[in-house]
Amino acid sequence: MLIVMKADATDGQVEAVVQVIEELGYKAHPMPGAARTAVGITGNSGAIDPSHFETLPGVAEAVRISKPYKLVTLDMRKEKTVVRVGDAAIGGDELAIIAGPCAVESRTQAFAVAEVVRRSGARFFRGGAFKPRTSPYAFQGLGEDGLKILAEIRDTFGLKIVTEALDEPSVDLVERYADMIQIGARSMQNFTLLRRVGKSSLPVLLKRGLSATLDEWLLAAEYIMAEGNYQVVLCERGIRTFSQHTRNTLDLAAIPAVRRISHLPVIVDPSHGTGKNYMVTPLARAGVAVGADGLIVEVHDSPGNALSDGAQALTLDQYERLVSEVRAIHEVIAPAPVG
Amino acid sequence: MLIVMKADATDGQVEAVVQVIEELGYKAHPMPGAARTAVGITGNSGAIDPSHFETLPGVAEAVRISKPYKLVTLDMRKEKTVVRVGDAAIGGDELAIIAGPCAVESRTQAFAVAEVVRRSGARFFRGGAFKPRTSPYAFQGLGEDGLKILAEIRDTFGLKIVTEALDEPSVDLVERYADMIQIGARSMQNFTLLRRVGKSSLPVLLKRGLSATLDEWLLAAEYIMAEGNYQVVLCERGIRTFSQHTRNTLDLAAIPAVRRISHLPVIVDPSHGTGKNYMVTPLARAGVAVGADGLIVEVHDSPGNALSDGAQALTLDQYERLVSEVRAIHEVIAPAPVG
Amino acid sequence: MLIVMKADATDGQVEAVVQVIEELGYKAHPMPGAARTAVGITGNSGAIDPSHFETLPGVAEAVRISKPYKLVTLDMRKEKTVVRVGDAAIGGDELAIIAGPCAVESRTQAFAVAEVVRRSGARFFRGGAFKPRTSPYAFQGLGEDGLKILAEIRDTFGLKIVTEALDEPSVDLVERYADMIQIGARSMQNFTLLRRVGKSSLPVLLKRGLSATLDEWLLAAEYIMAEGNYQVVLCERGIRTFSQHTRNTLDLAAIPAVRRISHLPVIVDPSHGTGKNYMVTPLARAGVAVGADGLIVEVHDSPGNALSDGAQALTLDQYERLVSEVRAIHEVIAPAPVG
Amino acid sequence: MLIVMKADATDGQVEAVVQVIEELGYKAHPMPGAARTAVGITGNSGAIDPSHFETLPGVAEAVRISKPYKLVTLDMRKEKTVVRVGDAAIGGDELAIIAGPCAVESRTQAFAVAEVVRRSGARFFRGGAFKPRTSPYAFQGLGEDGLKILAEIRDTFGLKIVTEALDEPSVDLVERYADMIQIGARSMQNFTLLRRVGKSSLPVLLKRGLSATLDEWLLAAEYIMAEGNYQVVLCERGIRTFSQHTRNTLDLAAIPAVRRISHLPVIVDPSHGTGKNYMVTPLARAGVAVGADGLIVEVHDSPGNALSDGAQALTLDQYERLVSEVRAIHEVIAPAPVG
Repeated sequence: MLIVMKADATDGQVEAVVQVIEELGYKAHPMPGAARTAVGITGNSGAIDPSHFETLPGVAEAVRISKPYKLVTLDMRKEKTVVRVGDAAIGGDELAIIAGPCAVESRTQAFAVAEVVRRSGARFFRGGAFKPRTSPYAFQGLGEDGLKILAEIRDTFGLKIVTEALDEPSVDLVERYADMIQIGARSMQNFTLLRRVGKSSLPVLLKRGLSATLDEWLLAAEYIMAEGNYQVVLCERGIRTFSQHTRNTLDLAAIPAVRRISHLPVIVDPSHGTGKNYMVTPLARAGVAVGADGLIVEVHDSPGNALSDGAQALTLDQYERLVSEVRAIHEVIAPAPVG
Repeated sequence: MLIVMKADATDGQVEAVVQVIEELGYKAHPMPGAARTAVGITGNSGAIDPSHFETLPGVAEAVRISKPYKLVTLDMRKEKTVVRVGDAAIGGDELAIIAGPCAVESRTQAFAVAEVVRRSGARFFRGGAFKPRTSPYAFQGLGEDGLKILAEIRDTFGLKIVTEALDEPSVDLVERYADMIQIGARSMQNFTLLRRVGKSSLPVLLKRGLSATLDEWLLAAEYIMAEGNYQVVLCERGIRTFSQHTRNTLDLAAIPAVRRISHLPVIVDPSHGTGKNYMVTPLARAGVAVGADGLIVEVHDSPGNALSDGAQALTLDQYERLVSEVRAIHEVIAPAPVG
Repeated sequence: MLIVMKADATDGQVEAVVQVIEELGYKAHPMPGAARTAVGITGNSGAIDPSHFETLPGVAEAVRISKPYKLVTLDMRKEKTVVRVGDAAIGGDELAIIAGPCAVESRTQAFAVAEVVRRSGARFFRGGAFKPRTSPYAFQGLGEDGLKILAEIRDTFGLKIVTEALDEPSVDLVERYADMIQIGARSMQNFTLLRRVGKSSLPVLLKRGLSATLDEWLLAAEYIMAEGNYQVVLCERGIRTFSQHTRNTLDLAAIPAVRRISHLPVIVDPSHGTGKNYMVTPLARAGVAVGADGLIVEVHDSPGNALSDGAQALTLDQYERLVSEVRAIHEVIAPAPVG
Repeated sequence: MLIVMKADATDGQVEAVVQVIEELGYKAHPMPGAARTAVGITGNSGAIDPSHFETLPGVAEAVRISKPYKLVTLDMRKEKTVVRVGDAAIGGDELAIIAGPCAVESRTQAFAVAEVVRRSGARFFRGGAFKPRTSPYAFQGLGEDGLKILAEIRDTFGLKIVTEALDEPSVDLVERYADMIQIGARSMQNFTLLRRVGKSSLPVLLKRGLSATLDEWLLAAEYIMAEGNYQVVLCERGIRTFSQHTRNTLDLAAIPAVRRISHLPVIVDPSHGTGKNYMVTPLARAGVAVGADGLIVEVHDSPGNALSDGAQALTLDQYERLVSEVRAIHEVIAPAPVG
């Protein structure tokens, strides 16, 4: 942390800041400049609360230098984490593709989609049994019945099941039927839920919140890892901005930004990231080109009749073309270096 | 809902849209224009999913007209709701002031603040026992011990206790010790939690999420009311924008915007809404001037030593001046009309 | 500036940073910490370009400490600037009110509004002769004919004329007919225009850009002052955010933020800041309560027929009520302290 | 346009709306619904000002349906525009690459970069002679001397010169020395400048403003085209959001969004779009993968010594690798369909 004094701060005020630093057990480094003095702090092991300083007389600003997370960082682990889900993986050489309907609506619908997903060579099937819906009057998912259909799909097609949990009881159920727990954007700072999945033996897919900074997202992963579960995959799914030609603004620069700081794999969701059918494939291509470890996409056998998010779901045909396009791109890009 | 066709849509494509509308059991109103045709839909009782139309050939856009909420609206109830908390109230003629430390840290600290809060004439005391913290390594609150201190404050000073619950177990505890349940910004779309407090007999203070639109915020209130709890107070506490001179951007236009749609009371949080001590009083004044029903402010007996959010807490002196300034403004403004 | 090294930076890399600093003629202050080393820089008179350091091996970040502006700051001038416009002023004890139609449409319209503005006790009349319009097909203003009407209003009612200039030729004309040059939000970083009005003898009303940070806004003022014109009034008029219940999000925290850094007066525009008639008065009250030096509001004798921005214009009656409400608030708030 | 009435609007209020529509010479289509009535408007040739309706009693909202632009649209021209710059082109089958330093600093620097740009097979050279700088004290470009160096580069290397103009005098100079006029993000709504380049015989590169919606950006292009210059290339260069891990948030969904509406070519600027050297290549790959017609990238022979924006400039080596990577991606993606 660096304490920047006001231009007219007195020597006594600088001295008072130094004294507070020393009382806290740290070392103070005053640096008198032409216009103003700054005081560096060292000797701290964790983050220092800026409020110790911001209200002291003569202080202009307290600038945080160290980052507040540890386990997610490349400082902690140099090699990229490969998250293993049975015999499939995310973060390795192969591009991970997670596909399926927004919500499991019926056995027929889910099986029709799963067949195409399997045929495409994807290893993961997504489908919501518990749906977080903005309106209390919207379809909220089939619950445990949906999970049973998903478990059947795993048995029939050999696909790994990725599905969202909304609270502790639904984590219990997802653990029983599925292979990977998804934490949705609206739950990214549901700390009770993060701690609960941190105690799970299943890997976790952690979506970025709509207004989450990079630090907040990584700290959400840190919550999970701090409980002992190191199998975390990050997922960029768009942020909320003034731009209204898409449902969210897909922030693809987050992929190299995560790479530079963290060893965790990171994938892209072009379906929620755009909210528009015709944009999903171009943004999926861009996600792979930017260096993501995989994609999660919504596919429906009849998007016009979908019970949720039909506007962004791909048809089966569109999905198959998407897979062949992103595979071709994945082959030509050099593997993104770590760090 | 209005379906806007592309400029080059064929008559057959318009006809197909009309047919889908009629199959859904609604009435279609085609309106051929100079440049393009639009088709209005009536006869629906709830919201129509735009995805029925957005992927049909020739369709440019499906524009939602009706709002998806009911219970929160002035259509449902013309008179403003007054939320009663024992013998105190929010939404009536008197300006409601909720004040106290960010987190309950100790009996001594909480009592020191409570004494000043009581002396100021405020009727509500705030203080966190369960703190949602961005970092897993930050102080997370005293839990039930904190609630016990709050209950003592109620008994000693006659203040009503407002405190945050993070999950179902903490709602159970808050119900036992406090008078009003706060749902924090990060939990605004924790739908499990919203349904749980919807079944509570305590009133609920619902903070706006960092990236919540007006509709999403009102729908979160609708979740609570749909379970039967009509005692909901909304709280504007700042949104996330590019603007970095404050921690959040306080969106005071939300107050008249809520007023025009909803009968629920709405208050302002200038502490989280700015994150800076020196801004709290001016923005509190602005919140009252814009027509809010009350304020929630952070006060600490020694902000420099606060375990959380010290940078924004007022000193006891600053708080007393704030109260006298906002009371003066409240007296001169005409009561904001409903509707 | 502070150079933060990566956790695994070598001593040689730190040494290389020190060397670059010294080659630039500054003094380096290395501060080895538990996790990483930081190097402070002093001895610079102006801002240092971070790019000297950001690409050096081992460097994590270059953090700017000093602010890049001077003339706008309280460091440069302790007392608040009072901008004088003839016998009227902005920034003094009296609340400045600038009112009038968005665009001058006709002599009749402008005179009808001006009469009410004068009667309200306001000293300034606004009205656009050159209108920056998003669409090339929208009404672009009456040009010099509009300015002539404004000049007549000055002569008839004794009001000071505030009107926008879009480019150098329109500055020439505005100088001929008006009393104060307005620089609109879209022109806030039109540096050619800023330099031109910096050479004018008229005071300048500088609106904040839709996506301008506080620093960018103050630097725009610095451009004007660097040319010798110190008569600058800042105007907060809303920023662009995800929030769509208003045309822009009025960032009232900008008022105390400016106050803390700058001696320049700052006013609020609740008309563009909300874009909705029914919000103008509440936000005007809030603007005065937060401590602004004045308001600029749009008034029209027949808003339904306005050629631009009718949706936000007040009727003459609404305007008169607004003035009496904001005056009452202005009387009760303590004068905001400088610094 | 669609006028949505309030739920409690009276028949007389609906009738009054119909009457206003008919007085304006349009046709009204009232659609009584279960909850509320809406009134469609047809018969208009251009956009209707919503303010005719928004303040009428009983009106809840006026929803704009038709778009306010024409010349930029696929309705006007079905085939994609190929902008020709001498024997080079943007918008055709070949990927257009525009590369060079942020600012022309010296003949030596510019030539060193140009040689590498030429060798890479790129056809366009960029370099600023007039730099819009946030601070009045920053390097503002070499002016006409810079343009002369650029003209020499054209003669020596056969590269087409793309350079920014800030105002009318600099357009005159750019026309004399260069091949394509760049309008920067800060000038996107400098309507005087847009009209001036609309009268030029040179093609125009129009960058998206930091807070520009898709409609505003297309309307800026419409300003240029309305003056007769149809040779416009759009450039996505990042928007301003809360996300602070990059200088701007590159909104790659804008590429398919433009494609669906407009026949104009659109390119991507990964340098300003991220502001960080290590992100430029991944985002350049993403830009090509999403379907952009080209890239504009900053390259410097010695980024650490750059006079502006060094932190984002690629080294010559990095640039050569970028070109080979994006070419490989361009080859594998199917040409994006129009419409």
